[in-house]
Amino acid sequence: MPMVFDRIAILGVGLIGASIARAAREYGAANTIALYDANPDVRERARELGLGEVFDDAEKAVASAELVVLAVPVGAMGAAASACSRGLRIGAIVTDVGSVKQAVVEAIAEALPAYVYLVPGHPLAGTEHSGPDAGFATLFHNRWQILTPLPGQTDAYAAAVDQLEHFWRALGSNVERMDAQRHDVVLAVVSHLPHLIAFNIVAMAEDLENVTESEVVKYSASGFRDFTRIAASDPTMWRDVFLNNRDAVLEVLGRFSEDLAALQRAIRWGEGDTLYDLFDRARRMRREVIDAGQDSPAPNWGRDEPSS
Amino acid sequence: MPMVFDRIAILGVGLIGASIARAAREYGAANTIALYDANPDVRERARELGLGEVFDDAEKAVASAELVVLAVPVGAMGAAASACSRGLRIGAIVTDVGSVKQAVVEAIAEALPAYVYLVPGHPLAGTEHSGPDAGFATLFHNRWQILTPLPGQTDAYAAAVDQLEHFWRALGSNVERMDAQRHDVVLAVVSHLPHLIAFNIVAMAEDLENVTESEVVKYSASGFRDFTRIAASDPTMWRDVFLNNRDAVLEVLGRFSEDLAALQRAIRWGEGDTLYDLFDRARRMRREVIDAGQDSPAPNWGRDEPSS
Repeated sequence: MPMVFDRIAILGVGLIGASIARAAREYGAANTIALYDANPDVRERARELGLGEVFDDAEKAVASAELVVLAVPVGAMGAAASACSRGLRIGAIVTDVGSVKQAVVEAIAEALPAYVYLVPGHPLAGTEHSGPDAGFATLFHNRWQILTPLPGQTDAYAAAVDQLEHFWRALGSNVERMDAQRHDVVLAVVSHLPHLIAFNIVAMAEDLENVTESEVVKYSASGFRDFTRIAASDPTMWRDVFLNNRDAVLEVLGRFSEDLAALQRAIRWGEGDTLYDLFDRARRMRREVIDAGQDSPAPNWGRDEPSS
Repeated sequence: MPMVFDRIAILGVGLIGASIARAAREYGAANTIALYDANPDVRERARELGLGEVFDDAEKAVASAELVVLAVPVGAMGAAASACSRGLRIGAIVTDVGSVKQAVVEAIAEALPAYVYLVPGHPLAGTEHSGPDAGFATLFHNRWQILTPLPGQTDAYAAAVDQLEHFWRALGSNVERMDAQRHDVVLAVVSHLPHLIAFNIVAMAEDLENVTESEVVKYSASGFRDFTRIAASDPTMWRDVFLNNRDAVLEVLGRFSEDLAALQRAIRWGEGDTLYDLFDRARRMRREVIDAGQDSPAPNWGRDEPSS
């Protein structure tokens, strides 16, 4: 596959930024990779890991880059765009990896000059680990990359979107386009609410008076541990997600609580059929997830795979 | 290791019953294994799988067994005990595998003759799969087996408890003793509530008007799919758990909802520090679960393990 870009710059070297750097090199999607992180320790670590050419200045990092990827938490996107803005070359493509799109687009757009192409994006990929050491080249393999191009743009803009799509495909992603508003609603359901629930149940379990934390940990394999994994994700990233996708999250959370109240009532009144029907529906959804290739059918995800 | 029992009988050949049969043979914990299931199709399948000597009658299955294991859903425990009661030999040990202990003990105890030893138990082991084909010999390896012996018993009873503990250790379990009331509270936290939440969010996602089911499935890897796994467990089993551990589940559910309402408020009012602190606490709990050897530290449980 031919090189997609001669030079790219990545601002923010966490799990995602480091993975893009590794993947772009591994799959020949960029010739040179410039990196910048606001944290000097992270820059130092990025140098040690040999992730690319590390700069101590955001403007210098983006100079002459054809693609600039903002890979910082959602709440820091505007500042990252401002920090590099004056260094951007004419016609550069600027994208981001934020889990929220409408609020991020607003924050970035006002910081950027008119002579660059802003094509917002969101890779639906990650693990519960964070930081530059957590990055790896195959993170985006067979994962969705959602692009939310701005409406009503020129042909040159459309070409920039195509080129960015080409870049993500080179990294192994499946690419989908969607408008930013829809993205935020869909992600509130499939990602933001599940994380919120997981954070809530894990924090709650720490606070109980009648069950000790060590009992919770000891017996966590009975269901609880599955929640601890996604609750281990980066707290800054998630704080920013909830603050910036507030309306969609509150709406779906309201729905969740309403349904939970109905379930609570069914338990209180011993309505076995209601419970059975609901549990049976949930089980069918699992089959669809597996049929769609979105998860492993192995029991316990292979954690306790039968050895015989 | 010497044989623990000469003859055991298992009533109910689902995931757990079939796994006990396979494990008891594999690890030499029983010489002969008698099986019974109320469903003729399951009996037929148990014969095909060669899981043991399959009987068409519960009383005949338990005749001369030193240990009888009731491995049926919590709501069917009383009926299973009644069905085999008259066939039990004097001095037999009767145990169960129910996820709820107080209600099950009541239901079983009144169906049993005075000349057997009832030692309730609960293996904290399972997968999201069910039925005789889902069973495997290593299911109980390094998993907790909780025994909830009845209070105020004789020395002969204490010896029966020891022998049952020996049996579970032979299957690879770690054994813990606890009183039934405490078991039900602890399990409500670490298992019953997580399952209820997972069922609720998965069923809710099926019902949304503004996000389609296929979108949820397509993008489920961003968090949602982790909930679908535990929501795939047997609906009958779980209906019975909630109906039979109602008080403890409602109490912990009330706590969860209260905390969730506080989180909702923090999002609505943009209280970033509150969110950060809570997410950070949840993350620490994950580390404890991993340090305690209760889960794999691999990213995504190794589902997306880096190939390089």
